[in-house]
Amino acid sequence: MISVSAPSRAFASDNAAGVHPAVMAALQSANAGHALAYGDDRWTAETNALFKELFGQQSQAFLVWGGTGANVMALATMLGPAQAVVCTNWSHINVDETGAPERILGAKLIDLDCPDGKLVPAQIEEQAHALGQMHHAQPGVVSLTQSTELGTVYTAAEIGALSETAHRLGMSVHVDGARLANAVATAGGTIEALRSMTVDAGVDVVTFGATKNGMMYGEAVVYLTDRFAAAAPYVRKQVTQLPSKMRFVAAQFNALLHDDLWLSLASHSNAMARRLYDATRHIPDVVFDAAPKVNSVFPHLPAVAIKPLQDWCFFWDWSVPVNQVRWMTAWDTTDADVDTFAAGVREFLDLSPAV
Amino acid sequence: MISVSAPSRAFASDNAAGVHPAVMAALQSANAGHALAYGDDRWTAETNALFKELFGQQSQAFLVWGGTGANVMALATMLGPAQAVVCTNWSHINVDETGAPERILGAKLIDLDCPDGKLVPAQIEEQAHALGQMHHAQPGVVSLTQSTELGTVYTAAEIGALSETAHRLGMSVHVDGARLANAVATAGGTIEALRSMTVDAGVDVVTFGATKNGMMYGEAVVYLTDRFAAAAPYVRKQVTQLPSKMRFVAAQFNALLHDDLWLSLASHSNAMARRLYDATRHIPDVVFDAAPKVNSVFPHLPAVAIKPLQDWCFFWDWSVPVNQVRWMTAWDTTDADVDTFAAGVREFLDLSPAV
Amino acid sequence: MISVSAPSRAFASDNAAGVHPAVMAALQSANAGHALAYGDDRWTAETNALFKELFGQQSQAFLVWGGTGANVMALATMLGPAQAVVCTNWSHINVDETGAPERILGAKLIDLDCPDGKLVPAQIEEQAHALGQMHHAQPGVVSLTQSTELGTVYTAAEIGALSETAHRLGMSVHVDGARLANAVATAGGTIEALRSMTVDAGVDVVTFGATKNGMMYGEAVVYLTDRFAAAAPYVRKQVTQLPSKMRFVAAQFNALLHDDLWLSLASHSNAMARRLYDATRHIPDVVFDAAPKVNSVFPHLPAVAIKPLQDWCFFWDWSVPVNQVRWMTAWDTTDADVDTFAAGVREFLDLSPAV
Amino acid sequence: MISVSAPSRAFASDNAAGVHPAVMAALQSANAGHALAYGDDRWTAETNALFKELFGQQSQAFLVWGGTGANVMALATMLGPAQAVVCTNWSHINVDETGAPERILGAKLIDLDCPDGKLVPAQIEEQAHALGQMHHAQPGVVSLTQSTELGTVYTAAEIGALSETAHRLGMSVHVDGARLANAVATAGGTIEALRSMTVDAGVDVVTFGATKNGMMYGEAVVYLTDRFAAAAPYVRKQVTQLPSKMRFVAAQFNALLHDDLWLSLASHSNAMARRLYDATRHIPDVVFDAAPKVNSVFPHLPAVAIKPLQDWCFFWDWSVPVNQVRWMTAWDTTDADVDTFAAGVREFLDLSPAV
Repeated sequence: MISVSAPSRAFASDNAAGVHPAVMAALQSANAGHALAYGDDRWTAETNALFKELFGQQSQAFLVWGGTGANVMALATMLGPAQAVVCTNWSHINVDETGAPERILGAKLIDLDCPDGKLVPAQIEEQAHALGQMHHAQPGVVSLTQSTELGTVYTAAEIGALSETAHRLGMSVHVDGARLANAVATAGGTIEALRSMTVDAGVDVVTFGATKNGMMYGEAVVYLTDRFAAAAPYVRKQVTQLPSKMRFVAAQFNALLHDDLWLSLASHSNAMARRLYDATRHIPDVVFDAAPKVNSVFPHLPAVAIKPLQDWCFFWDWSVPVNQVRWMTAWDTTDADVDTFAAGVREFLDLSPAV
Repeated sequence: MISVSAPSRAFASDNAAGVHPAVMAALQSANAGHALAYGDDRWTAETNALFKELFGQQSQAFLVWGGTGANVMALATMLGPAQAVVCTNWSHINVDETGAPERILGAKLIDLDCPDGKLVPAQIEEQAHALGQMHHAQPGVVSLTQSTELGTVYTAAEIGALSETAHRLGMSVHVDGARLANAVATAGGTIEALRSMTVDAGVDVVTFGATKNGMMYGEAVVYLTDRFAAAAPYVRKQVTQLPSKMRFVAAQFNALLHDDLWLSLASHSNAMARRLYDATRHIPDVVFDAAPKVNSVFPHLPAVAIKPLQDWCFFWDWSVPVNQVRWMTAWDTTDADVDTFAAGVREFLDLSPAV
Repeated sequence: MISVSAPSRAFASDNAAGVHPAVMAALQSANAGHALAYGDDRWTAETNALFKELFGQQSQAFLVWGGTGANVMALATMLGPAQAVVCTNWSHINVDETGAPERILGAKLIDLDCPDGKLVPAQIEEQAHALGQMHHAQPGVVSLTQSTELGTVYTAAEIGALSETAHRLGMSVHVDGARLANAVATAGGTIEALRSMTVDAGVDVVTFGATKNGMMYGEAVVYLTDRFAAAAPYVRKQVTQLPSKMRFVAAQFNALLHDDLWLSLASHSNAMARRLYDATRHIPDVVFDAAPKVNSVFPHLPAVAIKPLQDWCFFWDWSVPVNQVRWMTAWDTTDADVDTFAAGVREFLDLSPAV
Repeated sequence: MISVSAPSRAFASDNAAGVHPAVMAALQSANAGHALAYGDDRWTAETNALFKELFGQQSQAFLVWGGTGANVMALATMLGPAQAVVCTNWSHINVDETGAPERILGAKLIDLDCPDGKLVPAQIEEQAHALGQMHHAQPGVVSLTQSTELGTVYTAAEIGALSETAHRLGMSVHVDGARLANAVATAGGTIEALRSMTVDAGVDVVTFGATKNGMMYGEAVVYLTDRFAAAAPYVRKQVTQLPSKMRFVAAQFNALLHDDLWLSLASHSNAMARRLYDATRHIPDVVFDAAPKVNSVFPHLPAVAIKPLQDWCFFWDWSVPVNQVRWMTAWDTTDADVDTFAAGVREFLDLSPAV
């Protein structure tokens, strides 16, 4: 129906992408003889040092398997008895982790309506009404996602204000940074930008994502201060997130963090989303609510066009009632992928005037 | 102090070994463009089919990150309300998982004294006294480890008898098979041997280990019947064990399960332990309680020799009060590694007559 | 400031009331010598029989300490692995149990916006989108409150429709009946009315409240079918809800269920709320959104009047932003209590024209 | 078969006894009009003051429903992330709470073999090997039972030594005092004796039992220092242990703690056990391992005599393999009850020479 072939790399998700060549090479290189398990190896030592360069010498990084596990581990070390997690209604911990937080933490998630995926300080203030009330779970941790599940981005000042509010009320702050790299990239793409929205903004613990940004597997939970780190080694194992052959997680991180590769990949991914937006926003019947900040765009399409286009080159529905879909770019998306995809969309919509 | 250099591959653990070349090649090969996440890819489809060849068409395999997670996932799907897990005092779930089962399952582990790491039917019978008593956790799952944490192996008949007892009493059977391959190898090294000690023996769910046997990461939870599989997809995610880029776990399994590589590697590892045993058992002051069944030996050494030998070529203490250590071989251990190590031990003990 | 003395029985809550004389007499009477603990006594046998008269011979009742425990026990027996509870945003389990469900069940509560405190079938249908999606907790139990936390009441037909929808989608139905008696009373006050909104409506498990209706302590979890009852004896103890000297819970129930005392008390309590409504709704500046269905009214008062009136005769705020408070009657509220209170409110508001 | 009638009060358990008249009178007296729920009442204020007289002004008491709940609440406030509870193999939390601790705490119980039901400091020392090992649950709380499930009693010095060891190793100390009164009674029956074995011995948190000692229901969790009390109000509700009409728990305690009634009752119960021991120990074929310290004796009887004697006057088996049973006295056991029972036992055994 569409004359051009679908691009080989579709726009389903950044976790549909493969592994960056430098990461794969690092895996090959780390496969040299024996190394003690559980992080007692030279690769992990190097990773630990690299994270200290990023977040400061006071920080401590712990490598884990995946994103859900990283979030659960972080929160498990941060929550006190009878405390709850304040988050957005869109948050991954709330809607996309099959209740892992409730099961493993035994804690309530207080999910607040945030149309743009971002919490604001007034919402934290409002939750304070429960503090000291024995009938209510006690808000203990504010968990925000940077960049958000909706493709929006907190400014460093916004995170700073949330942290200030949270700390003033006796709560702590967790950042689910599954796509933190994309947020840093859009904020300048420097270590200073990273620090401004994390350690300098008063964040306590960060889930540092990597799998969506060129790695095969592996994420890191980074404690920005000493406050919650003491139990981290035990909690990591207890929540099933301790890789045995850890050198292979570490080696990937060492490649990704080398020469700011993680920022280059995220910048590229972001740029591809912008290119896709620019290449499609003038197509009649393709309607965007906003330009992309990071690596996803959320167009509205004619209802009848969605299925044929997905069949041609797969992408996910986002909001069926409003005919909205998600196109997501990745570290390996090329200009040609974008241009071919945009051409296909244009051709299909042009050829379907009844749409 | 010892004239020979330590072998490059020590005898610390099979998880200190690297990745088999065929597995690494499979990872490279799978790194081709995009593939949908969470198992909706052709590599995972192949893995599922390969596991059905192993365990029968009625079985279903679910790929996960690691061994602790695999055990927790299996048990989470098997346990009913207020049920407990019966296991040995030596079991990995009891002593080496930092309480992950208790935390994530919310269930008691009833750990029974088993000097050789193996449960017997009479112990299951004895637990039946609690059934129907409202003050006691209800024994619901019998979890056994094959091969055991002590390097012993259940016969197929022994597992069959345990299963028969368990099922008769309304309990189900889980096998922690982190080193199942080594047990199968020592029992003949055939698919028939595998089946005889699992599906034919009445086992319900198997944790199928792979990381200790040549993979980089990844294990499988295999449901041998339909009984507990329905909730497995959700529970896997809920216990943080769903890999996003699953093709890379699957590709490793496809290499490992191809042409019985998993059995060849385990057989080799077992053979190396036997070689090590033969090469050291006649050294004065090296005392073994038993010949190895699988890939570990547990010699008693003179107390003063342990630390110097560990410094030369690292291995772990096993039981300090009786000067017992563990030497473990791996899929990549060579004859030369063994011979060099044995020579070093002999030289050190010969040169230390005061020991 | 107000010339009349506050009534000795205020309108804070039905759990501020004491114990009905018949219940107290039953406690005295049951205090005769020894009786085996944990329900193996003649009082409990009688209670079990009385509940079978109410809900049918197929039903089974389990006596517990309190309402939160009853809800948690019921849900703990109903939930399968990775399942979630669907409830209203106002539900006691969601907002007034300090996260007990999340902690003890390890399950997510999916709290849906229900302005009148009542779920509708379409909301259950909408949750079905998550069924079969491995990234989402699986809706497993629909929990509704009868009468609701907002003083509204489901009709038997409404509960029947919810049950039909839930069961068709593979979910089960729990009723938090902390004030079920008040709902039955308003629906006719007969056993038939009770059955029409529970067992005949397809409900699976009921939390049958009693403490708010004249007892000192104690509630019952009633399984209306065999489906979830098998594990109830163990789960009751496991969630810390097994009274040792159970005869004293049972004796109270025997008094309460005798000669429909429970219905008489609830009818009286409802009538007192109606009397209070009638006695105050024409007072200028006292604004009601609706007439009471059960034993609570929710007037809006002038902001400056609330604190002085609470100081005179305590009641709780309900919604501070809209100056709404809650006046709740109890089994022991008298006409005089109501009339005195209404007179005091009228006097205060009349004397405070600036209000 | 036995010529005398069984005593009306048997020797099954102290929780088979009823309610002391003073406690029942207090319940009657507290049933006067309305009182705010959840402890905001004058009876609870008095109870709090009475507990401060017992344990010191720095202490804080929290009233709860029952013993299992009290233990779980105490431990829930004491445990940190990934920590475990060290206890005896006989402990109530380990064997008689249906896994409530594992479910609600999500924590491992490390149950140590203690033939007399008492932990010793060397056992705590030995557990320290796990500290700092990320693969093992971290021993965090030592829980001991006073008096023990076996009827033995720790001296104040023994508890002091355990506390010193625990604290030195970074652990805290919980006392399950379901029968603490009996232990205090046997140690002199003074407040000084109570303090010497609790607050002065370095204990952190006490479960203070009352139901077995004359109350209808209700126990207290007493925090002896500020260390773990901050979260107690929330955790109490979260573990379903917050009574709504709390005045009725408090009123019972006020009666029990008045004029040392709790100590008189426990002393009496202990004395009755001693009387029972003296009245039966010379009966041929009745063999005791030891004299009673508190309110239970554990005789060995001829195997064939056990069932007939239980049918005559019920008591529980203790250890079937060694024909051991438990006879337990209560606050209301009389001299006549003991003498009648002893006479019956003697008569039955005399008349059954073949036994």
